[in-house]
Amino acid sequence: MIKAGIVGGTGYTGVELLRLLAGHPEVELRVITSRSEAGLPVAEMFPNLRGHVDLAFTAPDAAVLQSCDVVFFATPNGTAMTMARELLDAGVKVIDLAADFRIKDLAVWEKWYGMPHACPELVAEAVYGLPEVNRAAIRNARLVANPGCYPTAVTLGFLPLVEQGLVSLDGLVADAKSGVSGAGRKAAVGMLLAEVEGSFKAYGTPGHRHLPEIRQNLALAAGQDVGLTFVPHLLPMTRGIHATLYARLKDTSVDLQTLFAERYAGEEFVDVLPPGSHPETRTVRGNNLCRIAVHRPQDSDTVVVLSVIDNLVKGAAGQAVQNMNVMFGCKETAGLDAIAVLP
Amino acid sequence: MIKAGIVGGTGYTGVELLRLLAGHPEVELRVITSRSEAGLPVAEMFPNLRGHVDLAFTAPDAAVLQSCDVVFFATPNGTAMTMARELLDAGVKVIDLAADFRIKDLAVWEKWYGMPHACPELVAEAVYGLPEVNRAAIRNARLVANPGCYPTAVTLGFLPLVEQGLVSLDGLVADAKSGVSGAGRKAAVGMLLAEVEGSFKAYGTPGHRHLPEIRQNLALAAGQDVGLTFVPHLLPMTRGIHATLYARLKDTSVDLQTLFAERYAGEEFVDVLPPGSHPETRTVRGNNLCRIAVHRPQDSDTVVVLSVIDNLVKGAAGQAVQNMNVMFGCKETAGLDAIAVLP
Amino acid sequence: MIKAGIVGGTGYTGVELLRLLAGHPEVELRVITSRSEAGLPVAEMFPNLRGHVDLAFTAPDAAVLQSCDVVFFATPNGTAMTMARELLDAGVKVIDLAADFRIKDLAVWEKWYGMPHACPELVAEAVYGLPEVNRAAIRNARLVANPGCYPTAVTLGFLPLVEQGLVSLDGLVADAKSGVSGAGRKAAVGMLLAEVEGSFKAYGTPGHRHLPEIRQNLALAAGQDVGLTFVPHLLPMTRGIHATLYARLKDTSVDLQTLFAERYAGEEFVDVLPPGSHPETRTVRGNNLCRIAVHRPQDSDTVVVLSVIDNLVKGAAGQAVQNMNVMFGCKETAGLDAIAVLP
Amino acid sequence: MIKAGIVGGTGYTGVELLRLLAGHPEVELRVITSRSEAGLPVAEMFPNLRGHVDLAFTAPDAAVLQSCDVVFFATPNGTAMTMARELLDAGVKVIDLAADFRIKDLAVWEKWYGMPHACPELVAEAVYGLPEVNRAAIRNARLVANPGCYPTAVTLGFLPLVEQGLVSLDGLVADAKSGVSGAGRKAAVGMLLAEVEGSFKAYGTPGHRHLPEIRQNLALAAGQDVGLTFVPHLLPMTRGIHATLYARLKDTSVDLQTLFAERYAGEEFVDVLPPGSHPETRTVRGNNLCRIAVHRPQDSDTVVVLSVIDNLVKGAAGQAVQNMNVMFGCKETAGLDAIAVLP
Repeated sequence: MIKAGIVGGTGYTGVELLRLLAGHPEVELRVITSRSEAGLPVAEMFPNLRGHVDLAFTAPDAAVLQSCDVVFFATPNGTAMTMARELLDAGVKVIDLAADFRIKDLAVWEKWYGMPHACPELVAEAVYGLPEVNRAAIRNARLVANPGCYPTAVTLGFLPLVEQGLVSLDGLVADAKSGVSGAGRKAAVGMLLAEVEGSFKAYGTPGHRHLPEIRQNLALAAGQDVGLTFVPHLLPMTRGIHATLYARLKDTSVDLQTLFAERYAGEEFVDVLPPGSHPETRTVRGNNLCRIAVHRPQDSDTVVVLSVIDNLVKGAAGQAVQNMNVMFGCKETAGLDAIAVLP
Repeated sequence: MIKAGIVGGTGYTGVELLRLLAGHPEVELRVITSRSEAGLPVAEMFPNLRGHVDLAFTAPDAAVLQSCDVVFFATPNGTAMTMARELLDAGVKVIDLAADFRIKDLAVWEKWYGMPHACPELVAEAVYGLPEVNRAAIRNARLVANPGCYPTAVTLGFLPLVEQGLVSLDGLVADAKSGVSGAGRKAAVGMLLAEVEGSFKAYGTPGHRHLPEIRQNLALAAGQDVGLTFVPHLLPMTRGIHATLYARLKDTSVDLQTLFAERYAGEEFVDVLPPGSHPETRTVRGNNLCRIAVHRPQDSDTVVVLSVIDNLVKGAAGQAVQNMNVMFGCKETAGLDAIAVLP
Repeated sequence: MIKAGIVGGTGYTGVELLRLLAGHPEVELRVITSRSEAGLPVAEMFPNLRGHVDLAFTAPDAAVLQSCDVVFFATPNGTAMTMARELLDAGVKVIDLAADFRIKDLAVWEKWYGMPHACPELVAEAVYGLPEVNRAAIRNARLVANPGCYPTAVTLGFLPLVEQGLVSLDGLVADAKSGVSGAGRKAAVGMLLAEVEGSFKAYGTPGHRHLPEIRQNLALAAGQDVGLTFVPHLLPMTRGIHATLYARLKDTSVDLQTLFAERYAGEEFVDVLPPGSHPETRTVRGNNLCRIAVHRPQDSDTVVVLSVIDNLVKGAAGQAVQNMNVMFGCKETAGLDAIAVLP
Repeated sequence: MIKAGIVGGTGYTGVELLRLLAGHPEVELRVITSRSEAGLPVAEMFPNLRGHVDLAFTAPDAAVLQSCDVVFFATPNGTAMTMARELLDAGVKVIDLAADFRIKDLAVWEKWYGMPHACPELVAEAVYGLPEVNRAAIRNARLVANPGCYPTAVTLGFLPLVEQGLVSLDGLVADAKSGVSGAGRKAAVGMLLAEVEGSFKAYGTPGHRHLPEIRQNLALAAGQDVGLTFVPHLLPMTRGIHATLYARLKDTSVDLQTLFAERYAGEEFVDVLPPGSHPETRTVRGNNLCRIAVHRPQDSDTVVVLSVIDNLVKGAAGQAVQNMNVMFGCKETAGLDAIAVLP
């Protein structure tokens, strides 16, 4: 059994990790930390876990964390970078669900996250945990930077086009929509049901922290910088991201359906839908799949990719478990095979 | 008082017309027809109207309709074109909320609407009822083709850019999102709350009937054909359209905020928001405003326009009343000045 | 024109007061205070008010408030009682939307609200602002205690039965359901969309502050104490209260429909629905009506009353405006005649 | 492996059965019938099943159904009673998720369901499939009448009180609220998102088909008829039932918490919450639990029981699988142990 610990488990990625790890056949949940909630049984905060998780939150304790095989950080940005070194030195593998190790260019990271990086040397070592791109490196990684939710949906959608150099790279558009759970479980007037229900808006149009992360992913795939406009929007619902991606084809004769099907053949968690499909976010709710459809409307030179994930699963906790599975040699789908509940 | 009739008032545009006309200071609601519901008091079908509207549905009667000053068609596509001629001949002004008279090119209309046009000669006469473009023509029109909901939001958002020739016309993108009331008040599994709540999807990517209408509007504004990709999406909410529009600027030195502010100066129903804004659909719920914000993210050459309307008001019944106000010389805001209910 | 001021306008009752007063034909909105938001234009916080309300929040200023004819308190409990005396002395009428003056028994008030009362002498003077019960007293009142949302819906539903002594008073049941806006516009994890959407629960079963208020109302109507079980529930929606009331009839021969129709004949804001009806909260959204239906299922001796209001209108700001209309001799429906937006 | 068939799988109980049976370790899904959808892969209608269920709908075929060990009827009322006899004769066990075999009194059944019963002799044989009451009989049953959703939530909530004779039986009140999926996956204007979102109402107050079923359950538990008022309500959400139950205690000295805890000790699917709790429907979403809390507000003689289930799981498909597990000697939790997804 893999002994797993979670640092900072009171948010939505925390409860999602708990749900997935509690049902994982090869994991023993050993510790979940929260300074503010130390002593509280997790099932009191998250009653869906009653009868499944007996742990209580505890204050972080280095010895306990170091007795784990893997530690997940479900903390705000800036925490994992202060604790990872010690854990790695103790032989513990680390998966950070926050952004501390995602951006290779430290200056870019420090600009977008507004703080100096506490641990630059680990940034270079960290593997960006998108298994569909980096599986081999993840297998041998000590430290995995789990991707952001928008970057996962957008990158997987653009990847086949960009890797093959099929589209103009100077005018990519990612129009992305997310449920409110992406904002986390923190008291904020703007996320009250009374503020969000029955309404829709864009936000962060001038610049969102996931923009440099997506750009980095696409630049690596393209072998050059890309011009990307990324507009996130807030959906009046809890879970799910839908990215609608637009790019101009250099050559309209390419068979897009085959391109996508072949790129993701064998990928357990990318489902390329039949031609003409429109994926619904509810079909991946609670589930680690990314479902993708590709269109070329009106036979124009604009390709439209529709890419959906559950922001808390493939966009966070599920992908973290997938990474753990890769790192520890488990079946990649272990603990991740539940069917989405519909309706 | 303007004597008004409504043909086909059992749908959502019908009840919205009733609500707006019942509160209009210069209108006397004279008749509302429905073959299937003849005899039913409208307030039984729409209990919000109890105490405000005493009419019952009646079967269509030519004499009664001809006694009106204006008749609104809130019918499915293909109905108004069979009845308009007779009403116009009787001196009644007609406002069609369906699509019968929106598209000038009959071949295009017949392809997208899948039927032969019953009244081609009136297509030429009909005025497209977007007052921000055609106010003078509407003033003198006998027959107004009330715009579609998506075309209203998208056209108003692109208009200042396209009229001035500031953007490349071959790769416009309109990523639009609508509440479910746009699908009308008809029994359909896909619009059940259990199918839509908590989920999001695109639809109609290969082609949607509003595409040729938007193209016609933009081509008229540009003086040439435009290349437009239009992807509609279904929001898990009742009312509201949010169009997110993308275009490539030919010249990034243009002052976009001033451009939009000046284009819509004096327009009562277009509200250009301050720089950096993100309009929310709830701020126009039940209200005839189109609220617009314009962005140029990361100082790139891509302009992003955010345009919101209530699909049943500025996108249907409210714009119809606005057109009536213009046609009959009323104050353009008459009956349309209620403040959106928030939260 | 009635010069009106609002103290504490940053919550949901504040914005609702602004919406209603901005559209009131006989009111001039003079001031709205907020210490924390002083200087902020109200239309920036509540963009539905753009173009309708030009005021900015200001810090409370005694002179300005004293220049008003009426001041509304849309403040947390415990504020109005510290400021009312001074305003009354200056000849300003006061309507408190919080609970400071609702409970006549000071000991009860202090127990449920957890603080000493700052102004006991005004409690005696204050008139409980339920016009359907206290219209005459309100007409002459200087100080009105605007009822709570649940108490309004529950009291109006039970009133005809209790006033006439038709039901057993020892086992009344009020099962009430409210939208989340009843919890106010304050950051609280429990009111996040991600916590409330798609779920339902009771709360406050052991005891809720509206229980003593409802008991007081019913005891006054009955002329004796009543035994009431009150269970509030949280609906996954923004606005609306639905109270389902249960009582045992002493005599099943009473004509309940007539009883209710006669009790509320002439009341502009109580709509007794036809027999067999089920009122929907959406039919009163944004609107000051209380809609009521009365049932006696299966001809048993249990009467079921269904009573719906909009918690922010008839349950708060709308009733406050209704009270103002009564106090200042306006038409009781002035500013309150908009039709609910449906769907 | 248990060979399982489903008759009528195009509704919400059908897809839920598919989801649960596809993940059941001891079940082989052999056939799912639908006359109207014959030939359609089930994963096209329910895309959450893509990759998990390869079956297509087929027209009902007696030979194929008779090759199953168990056949579930997820059909409208009135279908199972015409097909059950033949299957039972062929040695197939039958679980009917509709109402055909729930009511023992045929006259009552025929009155509420509006048709003559096609198979009265099986009504007597059928076992009412509430394992918490009838486990032993279910174990040996050939034919199980799976309970209704409301009856499950209400019966489990009242049971400890009624079995022990602790409450007055003449004035029980069940105020129940259900998500819209209880109305099934059929096109109906009243269940459109635009009709239901953001609103709440009661329905069926004069009489609902689940009333006689609940009465039968409680009468059996009490050993005498009971007087019950049952008012169902429609929640603006997809899944979940919350029953709020009211009864008058004969003796207020009883320890209610212990009563409930002891009654359901050992029950895998009834979770009695700690004192003071308020169960949320989301904590059982997709899950077979009934969560119950018991209160005695203000130390009065009225007991309030809060009982929540997922109407499609413990209220339908999950309970059917639980019954199958009991009938076939599987672990009762087999296939039913997934944790509810929250948020």
